[in-house]
Amino acid sequence: MITITRRVEFSAAHRLHNPELSAEENWRIFGICNNANGHGHNYAVEVSVKGAIPKKTGMVMDLKDLSDILQRAIHEPCDHKHLNHDVAMFEGIIPTAENLAIAFWKGVAAELTKYPGVKLHGVRVIESRNNFVEYFGPDA
Amino acid sequence: MITITRRVEFSAAHRLHNPELSAEENWRIFGICNNANGHGHNYAVEVSVKGAIPKKTGMVMDLKDLSDILQRAIHEPCDHKHLNHDVAMFEGIIPTAENLAIAFWKGVAAELTKYPGVKLHGVRVIESRNNFVEYFGPDA
Amino acid sequence: MITITRRVEFSAAHRLHNPELSAEENWRIFGICNNANGHGHNYAVEVSVKGAIPKKTGMVMDLKDLSDILQRAIHEPCDHKHLNHDVAMFEGIIPTAENLAIAFWKGVAAELTKYPGVKLHGVRVIESRNNFVEYFGPDA
Amino acid sequence: MITITRRVEFSAAHRLHNPELSAEENWRIFGICNNANGHGHNYAVEVSVKGAIPKKTGMVMDLKDLSDILQRAIHEPCDHKHLNHDVAMFEGIIPTAENLAIAFWKGVAAELTKYPGVKLHGVRVIESRNNFVEYFGPDA
Amino acid sequence: MITITRRVEFSAAHRLHNPELSAEENWRIFGICNNANGHGHNYAVEVSVKGAIPKKTGMVMDLKDLSDILQRAIHEPCDHKHLNHDVAMFEGIIPTAENLAIAFWKGVAAELTKYPGVKLHGVRVIESRNNFVEYFGPDA
Amino acid sequence: MITITRRVEFSAAHRLHNPELSAEENWRIFGICNNANGHGHNYAVEVSVKGAIPKKTGMVMDLKDLSDILQRAIHEPCDHKHLNHDVAMFEGIIPTAENLAIAFWKGVAAELTKYPGVKLHGVRVIESRNNFVEYFGPDA
Repeated sequence: MITITRRVEFSAAHRLHNPELSAEENWRIFGICNNANGHGHNYAVEVSVKGAIPKKTGMVMDLKDLSDILQRAIHEPCDHKHLNHDVAMFEGIIPTAENLAIAFWKGVAAELTKYPGVKLHGVRVIESRNNFVEYFGPDA
Repeated sequence: MITITRRVEFSAAHRLHNPELSAEENWRIFGICNNANGHGHNYAVEVSVKGAIPKKTGMVMDLKDLSDILQRAIHEPCDHKHLNHDVAMFEGIIPTAENLAIAFWKGVAAELTKYPGVKLHGVRVIESRNNFVEYFGPDA
Repeated sequence: MITITRRVEFSAAHRLHNPELSAEENWRIFGICNNANGHGHNYAVEVSVKGAIPKKTGMVMDLKDLSDILQRAIHEPCDHKHLNHDVAMFEGIIPTAENLAIAFWKGVAAELTKYPGVKLHGVRVIESRNNFVEYFGPDA
Repeated sequence: MITITRRVEFSAAHRLHNPELSAEENWRIFGICNNANGHGHNYAVEVSVKGAIPKKTGMVMDLKDLSDILQRAIHEPCDHKHLNHDVAMFEGIIPTAENLAIAFWKGVAAELTKYPGVKLHGVRVIESRNNFVEYFGPDA
Repeated sequence: MITITRRVEFSAAHRLHNPELSAEENWRIFGICNNANGHGHNYAVEVSVKGAIPKKTGMVMDLKDLSDILQRAIHEPCDHKHLNHDVAMFEGIIPTAENLAIAFWKGVAAELTKYPGVKLHGVRVIESRNNFVEYFGPDA
Repeated sequence: MITITRRVEFSAAHRLHNPELSAEENWRIFGICNNANGHGHNYAVEVSVKGAIPKKTGMVMDLKDLSDILQRAIHEPCDHKHLNHDVAMFEGIIPTAENLAIAFWKGVAAELTKYPGVKLHGVRVIESRNNFVEYFGPDA
């Protein structure tokens, strides 16, 4: 197996908050991440795809195409936005790094159906140097 | 001259917006940084101080003390906050990286008056790998 | 499968030395890492856990809890210590990166038994940018 | 399972070009990477091996030996070279990151046959912070 | 004094070679950097400008404008190119990091004349993690 | 002015301790850095030199020569050593980052006297990502 990975970055605000819970319980669960006005990160997302390597190109997939997909599926909707208020894919979803990884997986996987033989392998969402999430899809 | 530098990090939301200007002019000046709900960064701040090196300690200043000052003057008021709404030192100030550097300089310099022979040399505010600001004080 | 990873750092001295071997054999096996007075590193340890994502929290596990565990199991016993002389968990163990990873796995896994549904996935011990070890547990 | 990973770096030029295709098709497939005079990167390669940990050494493998292998198999043939014109292992091969990973795997695996109980686990070729390839061997 | 710094990156091949010298002398001076087919780097360039901070904007200069200048003056002419053969600003110039810094200074300074009150402060050319050049202009 | 900077790294143990003071005072001043068995770091040192740029070479100084000097003056005496016990240049000196910077300055400056027109500009000693020291010489 061989994977190629492309990284994309964006800067966004978010707030960890479950509107179905009380203020007290939100604070107990999310702590300072529950701050009403939000806080923010320079997010980085690394997306890995796998496939065979055609002799003609030597590439699992055109990196420019993968980069364009990440722009459309991740950077454009999220960069310089508040994830809770401005981004459709997070409506009704608490924007934890876990949920970001799952949402980005769906968006990228949908675009990759146009590339036969190429499969999404993993999505890594890096919130800061100190914490990141890796998701390997609903079937892993 | 010798300087020692200590780094501190915090995650915060902010919005570049001048309430005295129209929505159109704000957008023209600040672009996507004017997004109404804000966006965010993992900020890093590097604070440099200078002074002589006493033979007894071999240190310009106790790094633990400098670290404590940065916690009080920078990390505690700003981490997991929205700089426009939650942080007293930015009331009435557009929270650009330039203005953060000046505000942090003031806060740190005030604490350093307790350390005779030690002088604040510079404050670097790093918003992302791609842009940072360096401030060397009102007299530089 | 989804994993969340938390990073912790510590600065420590160590010496690669097997007291059951001769000085010559220790030098042959460990080279400069056998220096009698030790040498040191800024270690980083990345610990990954896996589990389901409760809809209520959107998190595999509270990152603050994971961070507290890493403080107790890794940072507090090791930071600003000599791993051979000052740290109980390395008594009788050569403090190679491999053995550090196994010891940290044990310490963290013991604490995680309090979190039903959360499992330790991997421990990465980074000695320097140029070498690191990854351990996926006794059953992997 | 436990792996140890060693990193090696080199600076090289390369050009993505398939001599069996027309200039137009090369441009269509490889874009700016097809520039006739080539371009270049600071490559980093991380090689992971796995094995048991002998109690006597506490190490899967002597890191100095692994480092020497990477010097011979990767750094010496490639550093400060043009991968298309100067490096025997890439004759007739388009030097994409994918093909580099496969070629380095072969070279390192051949040397590792001298180390019973140690197996090559993975090769990561990092072309830039934004893209890298991971190869886990012909049997993975 | 306050400076803001913007970073831009490009990947390029180059060769250190003085055509007025013999092959032997070129090799003696430039060593492996004289390899006939060139080698390459992921270059990063950090450009710092200084100026006053208008209360209206809180910014020395619009970062988007600075970013656009760096795209035109540095990234577009150099990215995925061979600096010796493909880039007009290096005709007749040995593309050492020193000469890159001076050439980029000239290109950026020419564009900054449109911004009254903003002055170019420094250009840092980073060839690799292990070596970089800083240029503070012909008057420094 | 133009400077070129070269980076060198080493891994070492050290202990902050003044033998002329009591155990209590050492602990009060140096805290955990006073641990009797020492602790350690992956140190990085960045050395900057300045000079004119001869048209013939386009380089302030041959980087290979500067690299060799750093190997002899910094890496060889310090790597995989205990700075307090194994390194002659620190005899009678508390090995704080400040004192390291001054000692390295002396060693490098002595070697640079063989290079007319080249002057040592600065020495940066990086103990960890969170703290570093910069020294600009006895005349700065």
